[in-house]
Amino acid sequence: MRTKFFVVFFVSMTALLGGTAAFAGLQIQHWVTDNGARVYFVPAPELPMIDLRVTFDAGAARDGADSGVALLTNALLSEGAGGLDAHQISERFESVGARFSNSAHRDMAVIGLRSLSDKQYLIPALETLTAIINQPEFPKEAFKRERSRMLIGLQQRKQSPGALADEAFYKAVYDAHPYASQPSGREETVKALSPEKLRAFYQQYYVGRNTVIAIVGDLDRSAAEALAERIIGKLPAGKPAAELPAVKDLTEAVEINIEHPSMQTHILLGMAGMKRGDPDYFPLYVGNHILGGSGLVARLSEEIREKRGLTYSAYSYFRPMRKKGPYTLGAQTRNASAGETLAVMRETLATF
Amino acid sequence: MRTKFFVVFFVSMTALLGGTAAFAGLQIQHWVTDNGARVYFVPAPELPMIDLRVTFDAGAARDGADSGVALLTNALLSEGAGGLDAHQISERFESVGARFSNSAHRDMAVIGLRSLSDKQYLIPALETLTAIINQPEFPKEAFKRERSRMLIGLQQRKQSPGALADEAFYKAVYDAHPYASQPSGREETVKALSPEKLRAFYQQYYVGRNTVIAIVGDLDRSAAEALAERIIGKLPAGKPAAELPAVKDLTEAVEINIEHPSMQTHILLGMAGMKRGDPDYFPLYVGNHILGGSGLVARLSEEIREKRGLTYSAYSYFRPMRKKGPYTLGAQTRNASAGETLAVMRETLATF
Repeated sequence: MRTKFFVVFFVSMTALLGGTAAFAGLQIQHWVTDNGARVYFVPAPELPMIDLRVTFDAGAARDGADSGVALLTNALLSEGAGGLDAHQISERFESVGARFSNSAHRDMAVIGLRSLSDKQYLIPALETLTAIINQPEFPKEAFKRERSRMLIGLQQRKQSPGALADEAFYKAVYDAHPYASQPSGREETVKALSPEKLRAFYQQYYVGRNTVIAIVGDLDRSAAEALAERIIGKLPAGKPAAELPAVKDLTEAVEINIEHPSMQTHILLGMAGMKRGDPDYFPLYVGNHILGGSGLVARLSEEIREKRGLTYSAYSYFRPMRKKGPYTLGAQTRNASAGETLAVMRETLATF
Repeated sequence: MRTKFFVVFFVSMTALLGGTAAFAGLQIQHWVTDNGARVYFVPAPELPMIDLRVTFDAGAARDGADSGVALLTNALLSEGAGGLDAHQISERFESVGARFSNSAHRDMAVIGLRSLSDKQYLIPALETLTAIINQPEFPKEAFKRERSRMLIGLQQRKQSPGALADEAFYKAVYDAHPYASQPSGREETVKALSPEKLRAFYQQYYVGRNTVIAIVGDLDRSAAEALAERIIGKLPAGKPAAELPAVKDLTEAVEINIEHPSMQTHILLGMAGMKRGDPDYFPLYVGNHILGGSGLVARLSEEIREKRGLTYSAYSYFRPMRKKGPYTLGAQTRNASAGETLAVMRETLATF
């Protein structure tokens, strides 16, 4: 799957930027639908399949006071739509060999479909997808179940030093910026969610002008236009989500220690990094690959793991987002080695 | 996907039992290859796809002193085989739209493939699969990476009260039986693994007479026979894995408390349950569905969550295995409510 998904990923990422879609060797066609959705299309007739990715600017950065609402809204889409229950939805996709997925992140909510391109399989798959996108029902029973699941997840996060470190890291780097809030929500806000709140969130953000579709597969331009029209053409145009504030760069280094009854210490080090479409993407990618992005052979791992045996793993990565996403260096070590590990991480970074 | 996978699952499960394959409305064809592999086949021409599941009696119950060897051996299969590296393997599957998966559990190691049935896609997918099954190389670099990953996983388990409870539960229920050991291994045994040990494990257990294949999809009997021959026909017949000892029933109730610095208490309650093919499977399934298997509407959840607000979730399930798998009741609650929750679980079970 790797190659194909990379392509889909890249297309939709570029799309979200509204940037120029120049990618060596790949001809990306682009248009805007009547209701304002941006479509990116790459014909790929080698396989009798079509991959779709519909992204909405409806990630957790849009949660506002209802922390967790973006995740739960997206999760509920396929739990009941257009008169079909969750079981019928999954059976309908299965009966035509289609693979459906959905997820929400800080920066976007995503709906994905892989289907055979032959019309006898594709059309029923698209019918089901259209119901999910246009007529989600947020049924009460499924809402209660999924909210319970989120609340259990929050309980588990409290016990996980890795999750707590992650939360503190985002707060430290992003401060009052919407990226600082946890997509999984907080106990009190998740408890206060309701099907009505989900519906309101859906109505505001799942609209044409807030939508980007990437289509890659065995179809021609006119079929791709019809497909886009079919699945999102009936959404109201709505309004694009408000521009997110710029991320402020950190002015000074801050060190935060959180006590946790655990034998291991999680260390995260970082700052706001790059946004999607950064012209330095490739040099930064290669640089990070050498510093900490290539696993066992990267410098961080070499210094911390191979030379000093302080940890099983040390890594670093960029997470490009609409605004500057984090650049993170991380390691996990025995409590007694935490100071030394952090010192080596800083030293390795400083001398890079 | 749900329906199809259920079918594949059921077929291979029944197969592992060597039991009769009577399943209302589903005609399962069965034969044994020259090298002793058992094949189960269901033609399903509705979709131009083929689903395969190859299971080896090579789960963690076969680890012996090398705890963790089954998991790591299985994980390395697709990391290098027949002259292809991991990247080439994943590209080859991707280029023909095939989906490959592998995993190992207490009871079995599994290799799965979903491919288009058209020969131009199927044959290259089967070539790659054949290399993985017949010529895995256990390359040193990938071995080191995957072993590191397992060791990190073990560190994380130590911090997870849920994982610790799970481990203690299996020890209490299974005592000296191979099912008592953790598939993810122990730190000292995982550190002592080597590509040579993996190869030896592979040579002993990935053999014809230790193999069951389930094939469901758009092909006829003779094509299914050719397919089975192609992917496992060249494996040596070898020996079937030794019979596992019977699971001793518990003679008295035991209560084990593990102190952990955590705000939540995990409670697991259970005993050896049923093995695959148990004639009482359906009555037991339905009974458990009412007691704790149906989520929010089951009695356990009703008593513990709805009536008393002690937890977000309480559940129960059977996990049928080759020998009696566990029957487990579980809940997670605040430390202060642990005693009451356990009492309600026992009461609900006793009055069921």
